[in-house]
Parts: sequence; C-alpha cells; structure tokens
Amino acid sequence: MPTFPFSAIVGQDEMRQALLIAAVDPAVGGVLVFGDRGTGKSTAIRALAALLPPMRAVVGCPYNCDPDSPAESCPHCAGSPGARKKSEKKPVPVVDLPLGATEDRVVGTLDLERALGAGVKAFEPGLLARANRGFLYIDEVNLLEDHLVDLLLDVAASGVNTVEREGLSLRHPARFVLVGSGNPEEGELRPQLLDRFGLACEVATPKDIPTRIAVVRARDAYERDPEGFCAARAGEERKIQKTILLARERLPGVTVPDAALEQAARLCLALGTDGLRGELTLMRTARALAALDGAGTVTSDHLRRIAPAALRHRLRRNPLDESGSTARVERALAEVFA
Amino acid sequence: MPTFPFSAIVGQDEMRQALLIAAVDPAVGGVLVFGDRGTGKSTAIRALAALLPPMRAVVGCPYNCDPDSPAESCPHCAGSPGARKKSEKKPVPVVDLPLGATEDRVVGTLDLERALGAGVKAFEPGLLARANRGFLYIDEVNLLEDHLVDLLLDVAASGVNTVEREGLSLRHPARFVLVGSGNPEEGELRPQLLDRFGLACEVATPKDIPTRIAVVRARDAYERDPEGFCAARAGEERKIQKTILLARERLPGVTVPDAALEQAARLCLALGTDGLRGELTLMRTARALAALDGAGTVTSDHLRRIAPAALRHRLRRNPLDESGSTARVERALAEVFA
Amino acid sequence: MPTFPFSAIVGQDEMRQALLIAAVDPAVGGVLVFGDRGTGKSTAIRALAALLPPMRAVVGCPYNCDPDSPAESCPHCAGSPGARKKSEKKPVPVVDLPLGATEDRVVGTLDLERALGAGVKAFEPGLLARANRGFLYIDEVNLLEDHLVDLLLDVAASGVNTVEREGLSLRHPARFVLVGSGNPEEGELRPQLLDRFGLACEVATPKDIPTRIAVVRARDAYERDPEGFCAARAGEERKIQKTILLARERLPGVTVPDAALEQAARLCLALGTDGLRGELTLMRTARALAALDGAGTVTSDHLRRIAPAALRHRLRRNPLDESGSTARVERALAEVFA
Amino acid sequence: MPTFPFSAIVGQDEMRQALLIAAVDPAVGGVLVFGDRGTGKSTAIRALAALLPPMRAVVGCPYNCDPDSPAESCPHCAGSPGARKKSEKKPVPVVDLPLGATEDRVVGTLDLERALGAGVKAFEPGLLARANRGFLYIDEVNLLEDHLVDLLLDVAASGVNTVEREGLSLRHPARFVLVGSGNPEEGELRPQLLDRFGLACEVATPKDIPTRIAVVRARDAYERDPEGFCAARAGEERKIQKTILLARERLPGVTVPDAALEQAARLCLALGTDGLRGELTLMRTARALAALDGAGTVTSDHLRRIAPAALRHRLRRNPLDESGSTARVERALAEVFA
Amino acid sequence: MPTFPFSAIVGQDEMRQALLIAAVDPAVGGVLVFGDRGTGKSTAIRALAALLPPMRAVVGCPYNCDPDSPAESCPHCAGSPGARKKSEKKPVPVVDLPLGATEDRVVGTLDLERALGAGVKAFEPGLLARANRGFLYIDEVNLLEDHLVDLLLDVAASGVNTVEREGLSLRHPARFVLVGSGNPEEGELRPQLLDRFGLACEVATPKDIPTRIAVVRARDAYERDPEGFCAARAGEERKIQKTILLARERLPGVTVPDAALEQAARLCLALGTDGLRGELTLMRTARALAALDGAGTVTSDHLRRIAPAALRHRLRRNPLDESGSTARVERALAEVFA
Amino acid sequence: MPTFPFSAIVGQDEMRQALLIAAVDPAVGGVLVFGDRGTGKSTAIRALAALLPPMRAVVGCPYNCDPDSPAESCPHCAGSPGARKKSEKKPVPVVDLPLGATEDRVVGTLDLERALGAGVKAFEPGLLARANRGFLYIDEVNLLEDHLVDLLLDVAASGVNTVEREGLSLRHPARFVLVGSGNPEEGELRPQLLDRFGLACEVATPKDIPTRIAVVRARDAYERDPEGFCAARAGEERKIQKTILLARERLPGVTVPDAALEQAARLCLALGTDGLRGELTLMRTARALAALDGAGTVTSDHLRRIAPAALRHRLRRNPLDESGSTARVERALAEVFA
Repeated sequence: MPTFPFSAIVGQDEMRQALLIAAVDPAVGGVLVFGDRGTGKSTAIRALAALLPPMRAVVGCPYNCDPDSPAESCPHCAGSPGARKKSEKKPVPVVDLPLGATEDRVVGTLDLERALGAGVKAFEPGLLARANRGFLYIDEVNLLEDHLVDLLLDVAASGVNTVEREGLSLRHPARFVLVGSGNPEEGELRPQLLDRFGLACEVATPKDIPTRIAVVRARDAYERDPEGFCAARAGEERKIQKTILLARERLPGVTVPDAALEQAARLCLALGTDGLRGELTLMRTARALAALDGAGTVTSDHLRRIAPAALRHRLRRNPLDESGSTARVERALAEVFA
Repeated sequence: MPTFPFSAIVGQDEMRQALLIAAVDPAVGGVLVFGDRGTGKSTAIRALAALLPPMRAVVGCPYNCDPDSPAESCPHCAGSPGARKKSEKKPVPVVDLPLGATEDRVVGTLDLERALGAGVKAFEPGLLARANRGFLYIDEVNLLEDHLVDLLLDVAASGVNTVEREGLSLRHPARFVLVGSGNPEEGELRPQLLDRFGLACEVATPKDIPTRIAVVRARDAYERDPEGFCAARAGEERKIQKTILLARERLPGVTVPDAALEQAARLCLALGTDGLRGELTLMRTARALAALDGAGTVTSDHLRRIAPAALRHRLRRNPLDESGSTARVERALAEVFA
Repeated sequence: MPTFPFSAIVGQDEMRQALLIAAVDPAVGGVLVFGDRGTGKSTAIRALAALLPPMRAVVGCPYNCDPDSPAESCPHCAGSPGARKKSEKKPVPVVDLPLGATEDRVVGTLDLERALGAGVKAFEPGLLARANRGFLYIDEVNLLEDHLVDLLLDVAASGVNTVEREGLSLRHPARFVLVGSGNPEEGELRPQLLDRFGLACEVATPKDIPTRIAVVRARDAYERDPEGFCAARAGEERKIQKTILLARERLPGVTVPDAALEQAARLCLALGTDGLRGELTLMRTARALAALDGAGTVTSDHLRRIAPAALRHRLRRNPLDESGSTARVERALAEVFA
Repeated sequence: MPTFPFSAIVGQDEMRQALLIAAVDPAVGGVLVFGDRGTGKSTAIRALAALLPPMRAVVGCPYNCDPDSPAESCPHCAGSPGARKKSEKKPVPVVDLPLGATEDRVVGTLDLERALGAGVKAFEPGLLARANRGFLYIDEVNLLEDHLVDLLLDVAASGVNTVEREGLSLRHPARFVLVGSGNPEEGELRPQLLDRFGLACEVATPKDIPTRIAVVRARDAYERDPEGFCAARAGEERKIQKTILLARERLPGVTVPDAALEQAARLCLALGTDGLRGELTLMRTARALAALDGAGTVTSDHLRRIAPAALRHRLRRNPLDESGSTARVERALAEVFA
Repeated sequence: MPTFPFSAIVGQDEMRQALLIAAVDPAVGGVLVFGDRGTGKSTAIRALAALLPPMRAVVGCPYNCDPDSPAESCPHCAGSPGARKKSEKKPVPVVDLPLGATEDRVVGTLDLERALGAGVKAFEPGLLARANRGFLYIDEVNLLEDHLVDLLLDVAASGVNTVEREGLSLRHPARFVLVGSGNPEEGELRPQLLDRFGLACEVATPKDIPTRIAVVRARDAYERDPEGFCAARAGEERKIQKTILLARERLPGVTVPDAALEQAARLCLALGTDGLRGELTLMRTARALAALDGAGTVTSDHLRRIAPAALRHRLRRNPLDESGSTARVERALAEVFA
Repeated sequence: MPTFPFSAIVGQDEMRQALLIAAVDPAVGGVLVFGDRGTGKSTAIRALAALLPPMRAVVGCPYNCDPDSPAESCPHCAGSPGARKKSEKKPVPVVDLPLGATEDRVVGTLDLERALGAGVKAFEPGLLARANRGFLYIDEVNLLEDHLVDLLLDVAASGVNTVEREGLSLRHPARFVLVGSGNPEEGELRPQLLDRFGLACEVATPKDIPTRIAVVRARDAYERDPEGFCAARAGEERKIQKTILLARERLPGVTVPDAALEQAARLCLALGTDGLRGELTLMRTARALAALDGAGTVTSDHLRRIAPAALRHRLRRNPLDESGSTARVERALAEVFA
C-alpha cells in the first residue's frame, strides 16, 4: 500500500515547514510535534520520507552507508576505506520506536544466535542502526523514559551510536532526524530534554468545516483506493522533492549577516532562554528556510517565521506571565522587530 | 458445547449493532463495551463469531491466510505468491487475552525448543497471530497495562504485527476486530487510548422484570440443554449471517454525500472532540450501517443512530457540564439535526 | 490421621448449607466464607470432601478423569475417546492454594526435567489439575493478587484450564468448587471479583457458653483420639452422604416456576444488583436446596433461605444506607415476600 | 563452647514458664516473646534446648525421624515402615531463621547440584527440615514478611512441610516449636498472625540493682570460663530436665473439668476474643502446666497463671479502653474468678 | 605507599581511645564513629591496623587462622586439628565494605567457576572471611540496609559466619572488630541496631586554628613524602604497639569490684537504658581501659572515662529532655558519682 | 572531525581555570560544573584533553600504563616490574559516563566470552579502566545514583579501582580527573558527595550581545569547517599546552607559607565548613594556581582567586542567611582578607 502523499496533507503548516527544514539540514536537531491526537503527525513524517528520492546504500552494510562517503564510524565499511563498494537503492527509512521498546532493541545488542553457535561476540544492530540516514519517529515521546530520550538525543546529535554493554564496545553511524510527538496534557519532558530538540511545532484540529471535510474526504479516498489517490498527486510530490534537493545544494552558500545574529540574540535575551542553543538553532533553521525559499541571505523574515518553532520549548516557566509560550515568543518578536 | 446463539441475546441493542458493524467492516477499529458486570459481553462476541461462516485458510499457515489473497506480510505464504495453496475451513477465531498475559505470549516469541534443539531462531506465533481474521477479546481492558493496549491498537490499526525482540525481526498479518470490555468505575483508559477505539457501547442490566426473566430462562435453558437450545434458533442465526454477508458485498458501493460529512463535522465541532478520528469513524460506521440496512447512501438517520457509539468516548471532560457523555452527544445531535 | 467429621461441626449453619449446595451442584460457582478467625472454615471444607464417596478415576490420568465420561478437554484421555479405561478409586481432592503460590505452580508449567532431558516440551500439571472434580481452598483469598483470583474464577467457571505460557498451548479439565475464606477487615476483594463467586457466607464465633464448650470439647476429643472420635460419628456421616447423593440425582428434575423467577427478579431490583448473576445464582442454588430437601419444585421458602448467601456480596455500597449487607438483603426479602 | 545454662537465667519467669510448657506439649503452638532488647531471649531458648536429653534419630534421615515412630510423611523413612532403622543420638536442634533468609532456604529447594549432575529432581531440605523435633527461633519476627510468618505457622500447626515449587511436590515432617521474639515498638504483626501463636510473653529489664548485678556477673563469669560455669550448674539442669520428662509422661492423663472450660469461655467472652483459639489454648496450656506441677486435674489456679500469656495477643484493640492488654486480661481474670 | 601513622593523628581523643580498647579486647563489640565528614575516620582505623604487629596465619587458609589455635569452625583447618600447620606472617587486615556491596560478596557465595568446571559446590569466601582477625570498616553505616547491618553484627558477635544459601551450608571463623562511621544528619540506625554496637564515639572538626594548621600540614607532608613522614614517626608507633600488647596480656587479670558494677547499674538505671547490654559493655570496656593504663582493678575513673562512648547510643529518646545524649550521660555521671 | 579548540572558548573563566588546575595537579579531586544548559560544559572538557600532549602508554596494557612508571596495581604491567615495556603514543582519554550506564560497564566485569569459551574467570575492563590517566565526564551527575557517584569518587581519590564482584577480586589503576556537570534545579547531590569534589564552578549564559554573537559565530564556523577553524587556532593551543607542562614541572617546588594556611583556616572557620577538606583543597589548588602563574610561593591572591570554587559547595545551609553560596564565600573573603 503506497504511503499517503505529503502534498495531500491539509493544513498543519508549521509541522510541514519543520519537517522540510529537517529534510534540508538534518543537523538542526530533532523535531517535536505537540498537539491534539488524531491530527496526522505520524502520517506526515511517513509522507515526507516517501517523497525523498531513494538513497544509494552499500550492499550488505547494516547501516546503509552512502557508497560515496561511508561513515568513518561504520564497522562494516571502514575496514576498506578506499575500495569501491557495490551499492543498491533503498527508500529513506522511517523507523518507529514503540513505547515498550527495550534499550537492547534500540541500541542493538549481542547476537545471541552467533554467540551460542559460533562462540563469537557479534553485534546485532538495533533500531538506531536501521534509522541511519532516515527518520526515527517516537509517538508519545513524553511517556518514554527519560534516559532513553536522552540516549536518542545524544545519538541524534553526534550521528554515532556508541554501544557499551554486554562486553560489546562498538560505534556505528546513526545519523537521523528524530521526530517525537506528544500531547503535553499527558506528561511533560524535562526542560533539559526539551532544550535538546531543535524545533517544536504545535498541531491542532482544524476548526472550519470545509477544511475538516477536505481532510476526511482525502483520508477516505486514500483508504478506499490508495494507488489511484497517490497517482493523482505524483506531480505535486515531485515538485516538493525538487524544492528540497535544490535547497540542500544551496544551503552551504547561504550567509547569515551580523544583524540577523544580533536580532536572534536580542530575541533570546528578551525571552531569557538558558544557554545559546536557541540562537544556534535560530541561525541554522533560518538558513535552511532561506535555502528552501531560494534566498542567498538570511533575513529577519526568516527569523520571524521560524522563531516560534525554534524557541517556544526553551522558555523558563514564568510564574508572573501566564500566557502560553507561543504568545510569549510572538510578543518578543513584536518587541525585537518593532 | 455449542456457543450461545447471537439471536438469543435479549436486549443490549447498541452492543449488538456495534458488533454487526465490525463484522461488516473490520476496519472501523476496535469496539469498547462499558457497563455493568454480568451483562453478557463475552457471550455476545462469541455468539457473533460463531454465526459467521467458517473461513477458508491456507493449510499449515499459522496466520490462517485466505488462500485467495494471502497477506503480503505473511512469512508463511508470501514466499510463493502465485502458487496455488491447499486450503481448509476453520471457524472464525475468537481469542481471549487474559489480564495476566505476558507480552511474549501476545506478540509471539522465540521458539525456545527449536532454538535449543536445531539452533535456529524460529518464531513462535502468539495470540495476535491466532486472532488474524477474527476477534481479539479483552475483558477488563481498563485494567490492562497501557503499553499493551497501545500495542494492540497499533496492530489492530495496521493489520500487521511487527516483532522486534530477542533478535527476531519479523512481520505477520494480524487483522482482527479488537473488542475490549470494562467497567469504568474500576479504572479508566487514558484519553489517548480511548480515542483509538472505533466504537464505544454501553450495556446495562435490564430494568423490567419480564426481560430479566427472559434472560434468566434463556440462559438456564441453554445451560441445561445446549444442543437443543441452539438447534431451535438455527434459522434465526442463518438470517443474521445472510444480512452480514450481503452488507459486506454492498459496502464499497455506499456513498457518503457532502451534507452528511458536514453534519458529522458540525457534530464534532459542537462536542469539541480532538482531531478528526471522530468524523472518520462516523463516516465509516454510518456507511456500514447503511450497508446493513440495504441502503445505497448514508443519511442523517444513520449518523444519528451511530453517533453516540462513535463519539461518546472522545469528549473532553467539561468541568462545567456534569452530564454524562451520552447525554452530551444526544444534546449535540438535537442541536445539529434540529 | 482421619479428617474431622462434617457432622461434628457445631453451629455455622449457613456455611454448612452453602457447602452442601456446592456438593450437589458444583456449577453454582465458588463459595466465599467471611468471618472471624478460628471458626473452623478450613476444617469444614475438608470435612465435606471426606464424607463424599471416593470417585472413580482413569488410571494414569493426571486430571483424574471419570472413566465413564472423560473430559473432552483432557489431553490424556481425549486421544482414545471410545476406548475402555482402567480405573481406580480415589478420595475427592481438596487442594490448598497457599498465599505465596506462584502462578506456575497453580496453572502448571513446562516440565523442565523432561525439557532438559528428552528435549520435549511436556506439561507439568499444577494445582488446578490436581483439584479437578474436587475442591480448591484458598485461605485469606482477599490477600491474594487480583489477577490470580480472576484466573481461578475463570477456570472454575469454565471447568477448563487454558495454558498459554512458555511455548505451551494446552487445555485440560479443571472442574472444581472454589472455596475462599477471608476476613473483610484485612482487605477487600474488588466488586468485580466478589460478583463472580456464587455464594457468600458469614461465620462468627458462637456467643453462648455451652456451644463454646461443645466446640472446644469436640476439638480436644478429636485431637486426643482421632480414630475413636471419627468412628463414633460414622453413621451420621453416612446419612449426610446419602442426602447429597440423592439430591444430585433429583436435581435435573426440579422445576422453577415463573412466580419464583419473578420473586428473584424483584428481590434483585429492590437491591439494585448489577447484571443478572444474582438471579441466575438464586435460581440455581434454590434448585439445589430444593433437591436437598427432596422437593420437586422451587418455592419462595427456598429463595428466602438462600437469598442472603446468594446476594449479600453483590450489593453496591449505598452511602445513604449504613446497615450491613445482610440486613439489607433481609429488608428486601421482607418487602418482596410481604 | 557449652550453652549458657537454663537454670542460670535470672528472672524472666513468664518466658521460662512458656518455654517449659512448649517443651512438655509442643502442640500448644508457637511462643511469642515481646520486650526490651538485651534481655536474653535468644539465650533462653538455646538454654532450654540444651538441657533436653538428646533425641534418637534414624541414621541418614534428613528430618531426624524418631526410629520408634518415623513420621508418616517422611520421604526417607516412610518407604520401609516396618523395617528396623539404625539410629544415633543427636542434640535437640535449635534453628535460627535469619531475617534475610529466602523462602528457598526455609522451605527447601531443588538440589541444583544433583539436577545438573545426575539430571534428577532431588529435594534439598531447608531450615524447616532441620528444625524437625526441635525449635525454630526467629528474632524480630515482626519484621519478617507476613507470608513467611504465615507459612511458618502453617507448618508448625500441621507438623508437615508441603513443598510445591520448581516442579517439586513433596511433604516432609516438620514438627517444631516456633519461638518468635520482637519489639512491638518496631512494627506489629497482623492480628491474623498474632492469633495463631499459642503463647505470648513479655520480658523486661530488671529494675533492682542486685538482680542486674547478678545477671551481669553471671554473664561475665560464663563468658570468661564457660566450661567451669556450666559444670557448676549441672545438677540444677538435670533437675529441670527430669521435671519436663515427668510432665510429658503425665500429660495424657490430666483431666479438664467442665467448670474449668466454663471459666475459660467466660474469660474469653469477657475479653471479646475472636474465634475459639483462645479457649483451646487455655485448655491445653493449663493442662501442660498442671503436668509440670504434678497435678492430675486442671484447676482455676492453672488457668489464672497461664491466662495472660495465652490471651493477651488475641484482644481486639478497644478504642475506649486505653489500658494495656496485660491489664485487660488481669481485669477480666479478677471479674471471672471473683 | 605506607599508611598514615596512628601517632600522627591530631586530636580525636575519644575515637582513638575506642579503637585502642577494641584492639585490646575485640570482644567489646563494634565501634561506631559519628560526626562531621572529612575528619579522618577512615584514616584512623587504617592507622591502628598498620601499627599492630603482623599476625601469623596458616598457609593456604582463606580465613587466616592462627596456627597456634585454629578456629573450631574453620573448614580449612578443622579437618586436621592436632597437625602442625605451616604458617606465614601477614598484616592485620582492614576490609572496606562498600555501600553497594551485595550480600553475596559480603557473606561469600558459590564458586561458580568450580561449580561449572568441576561440578562441585565449592564455597568462595567473601569479605567476612577476609576480615577474620582484623577490622571491617563501613563508611556511612547508617545508609546500609538494615538487614546487612544486622547480619554483620551477628557475625561480629559470634565470630562465626554461617552461610545458608544456594545450597551451601557452612560456617567459618569471622572474628573482627566492626567499625562503622556515619553522619547522623543523613539517616539514623534503628535503636535495635545501635544497641548492638559496643562503643559510639563522636568526632568533630577542630575549632582552633593552630590545630587545623597542624592537621593540614601533617596531611600535606604525608602526601608529598609518605616514606619520610612515616620513618620520622616509627618510634612513636612502636610505643603504642607495645602498650596494646601489654594490655592484652594484662586483661584477664583485671578485676571488677562489686562497687564498680553497682555504679554501672545505677548509671544505666538513671539513664533508663533497655536491657543490660549497657552494663555489660561498661564492665568490659572499663576493664580494657584499666589494662591499657596498667591498672589491676577497674575504678570509677575508668567507668567515667568510658561511659559516654559506652552508653550514649543506648538512650531512649526523651521528649521532655532536649539535651543531646552526651550531655545526658554526663549529667547521669555527675549524679551517680557525686 | 577535530575537537573544538580550548582557546576558542569564549568566557566561562572560572570553569577554564578549574580545568587547568586539574590538568596541572589531578590529585585536587573532581571538578563539578553547575549551571545553565547549553553553555559548552562538555565541549570545554574535550577541548582541554585535546590540547594535552599525547601520552606514552605500554602496548597491550588495557589501563594505558606509563612505560616509565607503570602503576603498582596494574595486573598487566606489575608482573614484570623491571622489564622494559614497548610503548605507543595515545591521546589523553575523555570517557563519557552515560546516565544509564550499568555498574558492570563502569567498574568492569567478568569476560563472559572467555568464561564460556576457555572456562577462565578473566576480567573485562570497564569505563574506569579506559579513563586511567585522563578524564571521566558525567553529564547531569546530580541525576546519577548516589552509590555510583560514591564509587566514582572513591576511585578518583585512590587512583585504584577495586573490583569485588562475580567471583572477581582485582585492583587496577584508575587515576583520572572526574568532571561532573549538572543543573542544580533538577536535583541535588547529597552534601556528603558534594564535599568530596575538589572544585565546583558556576557557568552561565553570557548576557551581552557581542559575546553571544561571538560564541554563535565561533560554533558555526567550527561546524561548517572544523579543520580550517582548528588550524587557525593551533598556535594559541600550543601556548596553553606549554603553560600546563611548565606548571606541572614547577608544582613540587611551590611553597605554602604558614600565613596562607592561617588565612585558609580562618576562611573555613568563618564559613563553618565541616572537616578539613576545604583547607586541604584550598592549599592544593592555590599551589597549582601559583604554578600556572609561574610563582614560587602561594599568596593570598591565589587563595582569593580559587576560594569560591574550592569552598562554595561545602557550606552548610544557613536558614538565616538566604544569600547564595558564592556571595557567602565572597563575604567571608572580604572579612578575612580585610
């Protein structure tokens, strides 16, 4: 059954923007999506991955290394760095991390079959291995154990999974975009963890009837005839794909003027965010946004568009200011960009 | 001992309607049955399964694949997709998931006997495998651990059981109707989980004496002479079976006019349900209801009849409105269909 | 050492009546005995089992199947259904379920010795197997884990123990009378569980001195010369045995007129019990009581005599009515039978 | 190092009386000793065991069966009931049950060495086996887990240890006097458990200086020259031993007149004890006390002397009566024996 | 690196006195040291052990038995009681019990290597074995689990470690001085445990500047040149060693007059300590103190000097007397010795 | 990818000073870094290690012993103390201790592969082994379990890892600088643990915009072109390296006059720190600071500069003084150095 097309998603602009930015520059860090249930979070991430062009991967490499630049840390490919690898095409992976997953299964573990059979300590790759070069999706990330979230953020940040368990000592590439969704009413992430996510979006149920009907009709049409539904949107999908690929090329050349950095700093000071991750993220995501726009320079418009998603999860709770975090970011934007 | 006949169930119309809808379109999602104890919930689900015609299944397939369209994800049948399979007839399965069941037993696990004997990692299918193409029944679902309910809903939604444990990595078909019963006074499901069930019915002890005597007499007659009791109702059972089979055929042709979708949307807006699962379920279950009625188009009558079961478990708790959720749905119906 | 004789029990009429009914019709469901410690609950159940005639059992069958009608679900006897079985006589079993018993030991488990030795997955029957055709006694059932009580009630209701664990998938007969005792001051059973017991009796310390002396004298005489004490009561024991055997024969012919069912329904409505288990139990136990009396028809006298034990554990807590549950049943009886 | 002599214990009359009664009639049930720390509870029990004459035991029997009447339930001796056994003399065992003891070690467990080596399921006896025919001592019994205390009381009451674990199903004799000590300030036993102990004594630090000096001197003399200290008290020890042996012979002939039973019943009614264990214990312990006195009949003097130890742990907490339980027993004694 | 010398410890007189007493008569029971962190508790105990003369130990005995009087309970040496053992010299052991130590490691456990290899159940001695004839040190004893403290005190009191676990049943000598340190602000020991320690000292940070500088200088000098620092104090160390050895010889001859015992009893009565452990400890430690002084008789001066350490941890909390326990002991001393 | 250079760190002077001191004299004890998230704590420690010259290590030694002075406690090198070792150059290790690390992995454990294969108990070194002669970094040390922190501090203090588990008994060198970071808002360390760290620094987000821009620019420049960025700072790095190496040489000759010790003591008295660890640390760190300055004698200037980091984590909470601990140290400094 083909995946629901990205271009057929109705509304949810902020989430779509965040996912596109992550597709252009995976190094912006994970994406958090908070909001109502039943708003298609899981669908959107699968849709994005499905429209990306298949990737070329080294045949037999459990980490799907790029044959042109296999990861330094790849135990499979690093042995013969110069050698020409055989490659195959594979879809960009989207790996689901279920709530009950054991650390073993996430990180990888001792291959018991080989341990018992051949008596050797072989590594059996886990979900992190499978997610390399793709997406790792966690529904209800706020219900996951903190230490697992922490581990995932570490790996996502470094692009390397370091395994130190059961007598195994090993590193392998695990460069992926971490996407976590959750409902803030059901439990919160520790500020320490929140801060490590790059972007945080809000999704909500559409309130106007025509949009709702459009969503329901689209979903129903898709479920009753997936192939026909997707065929009809193939052109739209190709267009988005092309935008992403162009933006990736353009990204290294986009410049960030000092004025933009100063605005970013003033924004963060106004909001009192801890540390400088807010500013670093603002700079990076604005750059990716500019690349998507085809612009060569980051402007204050890019900062304004991305600021809510880049900052709202980094605010300290202010007991004297009961307004929501999005409102507080908007107010600071108005002040700084006045 | 033959199963108690579906046609001999006295009262409990809403539950019976929900089960018939699930029999017509298993994709409407699980059915929750809440209410007093001792009201025959477990009996009804067994009765429904027993009146369905036996299904044809591939001989030797642990997932009981349909020989005419074996599941793509079946490790047993997918190897030889075109080949003609030998088939046999089997009753539609009803699998009970006991409260103390381990995740191992539900999901399936490593076949230790073969692992130790032959040294191979073989999969030993669990309860989800056995439930394929049938029903999975959980009594007191509200006392089950959340992560297990979550897992069951995931599988029920996708029709595929993905196993990632003990070095096994495997998918197999697991398309079933999940039926959960419970007493809301003994613990509640998280809203996140409630929302993932398709329909939610209420059952109650009948209040009038003749009905009560009828139930008790029927039960006693059945227990004292099961064969005789069932033989006397065979004709009624065949009639219901035929209705279901006809409705399944008719289902793909039933249309849903825009007006019906708008009513569904207005109903959900009036009730403030999160996301759009409410509308999606209303549309699907109304369509199945129309098919059972022999109608070609969904009308507002179908929506009204199914709305309470489709929506009552999706309401946010409203601290200013102490009326029960059924009353709130009825009020919204009156408003929207005024 | 011979068992203390049933006929030598002083007082405790309600408990003795309930045990006799269970001996006549084991299908009435478990018996709960609540009350003071040191009132001979464990003694009574052993005494009843000891006076029943020994049962004929298939030689070698771990479930003690009746050679005349081996259980359908018996893995040992079902293989050769028509064949003539060798049989032997065995006392009716009384199995104690200690509080610390593991689920393994209760349900049965993998026979490790054979698994390791012969490499086959053989089943090692547990306490449920041993209790087949007899009694299962649980002291302080209110301190047992809920899921174990639940499991026991399931098995007792269906007469079949379904094992789904450690790669075993097996059913065997387990038809027994569940007797649970407890002190309500030390913890309560969930209403859901209470409702699944057939009868609930109250026992108390006798308050008059001659009865107390009689109990103490009897106990002391028994402990100092068990053989002599029992020999002296052999005639009394045979009389009770005969009454039970006659009642079992008579039971299928006892009729329940509509008037009796209506009274049962009015009683339950007056008490507001959930579901219809109350009425079903009233009907069944009144029938067994009639059979013990030698009567051919259930009368309101039978209903009145058994109603407290059949209903007192099914009442909802009524915050406006502080009277005990026995008093509430008596009041409803007075009303309905006025 | 020889054991501290029983006759050298200074004061603590109630505890000494209770231990002597248990030595005469082990069936009176366990002995609880509550009171200050450092008052020689552990010393007293060891001293009593040491002065009893060594017992004759079947050679090789892990349960130390008496060659003249091996236990019916002994897996070692029951195989050849008539056969003449070789015997040896052994001291009466005193087994300490440490707080951290696992149930395995207490009850006995699978003999892993033989299971792994010879592939047979052999039983490895635990502390209960070792305590047969002797004493089992638990310091701080109120800190032990309830289910373990329960198990110990069950075994002590029945004289048989029934093992149902790890595929073992076995019974062996375990007839011992259970002695538990504790400090009520550090946690209480459940009333259900308290009631199952036969006697409950109180010990306290002596308040007069000469007694204190006597205790300290005795202890110091013993620790500096154990052999000499014990030799000097050998005559006293033999005298106590003879008293116990004579009382054991006399015990079956001691009569309990109805008047004594009526007094016991009135006493228990006055105190409102639950059940009849209070009266049963009063009768038995008064009989043993009479036997120690050399009397042929129980008199009210015997009842009065033993009533506090037999009843004080069976009183319900009375919120209107703040006096201690000993005072309440004394008051009831005064009333009944007025 | 040589150990910091005992004679170089500045201040902390009470702790040094307690350790010297324990070195003279290890049977006085464990020593508790309470007080500020960073006051050299661990250093002092190591220093004391280092100045004791090396002990002669049986070659190959894992418990370091004395060749002249091997322990009765030694599994290694008891086999050939009369035989002449080969011996070697070893330093007096100081064993640290880390907070996270498992009971296995403390008590000893099954030697898995030999169990798996040779198939025999051999014992692998634990920390208690290694501490025999030396010191066992526990930092933050108040954070250790109660049952472990209990076990340690049992072993320390009896000098024998009794192992009953994993099918092992074994005793070995474990005669050591238990030294526990702790900060009472971080958690308290149960009174039951406190009372089982022989002495309890208080240590505090010195308040005058010259002492502080002296401590810091000494510590720094030692750390920068351990060998030189120790060489300079060798004479002082030998002097202390000699004092201890002489006191050990003298100890059995020291007498305790009745007057001293009466004073001890009056002191304990005045303080209301439970049991007689207070008096027993006062007598023993005063005797050791007299031996260290070279005196032949215990005088009230010895009692006064040792009373605070012997009694302060045995006081009941007195809600009407808020003064610290040391002050209360001092007040009682003043009263009794007035 | 080369490490971010130490010389490119903007601001955070106190943390940089503490790390330099630890690099000069690792014996000053661990370094705690408390403060806002996202302030480059982890970066700084890696940067420092990277600028240190590679160390020479014995080939094949899992503890990286220095060939010129292998550790006494090294199981690999201690066997042949005099022998000339082959050596290789290795970077100074920085080992991360992840929050979820098991004690096994930290301390080292039984090498299962060799245990199962060759049947020998070999040791598999853990993270502590790998950290020898380098740095051990723990992010969020305040969320680590106390007993693990305790263990780490013990090892860091002694330079030796003592393994007592799973039948292993072994010591190996583990001399490293422990660096723990944390956010005090998320949980506190016990005072007992705090006191064992040598220095405690505070880091904070810079408040002025040019600094913020400088940090962000530097970080961005580094991430976009790591090699170029580092090459440009190679000279600065070499300068710092040289300062450290010179200070190490100079350290043993630096003197601490009595006046300085007196000031240190008066400072600690004024602050009421427990024990003398404060003074010891002040003396040592001031000496290292003097060595870094190229001074031959510790002056009050050195004490003043290091006092906040050396003392702020040793203050008792003073309920009457609500000022932060840094302010309290500053006030005491002003007083003592007035």
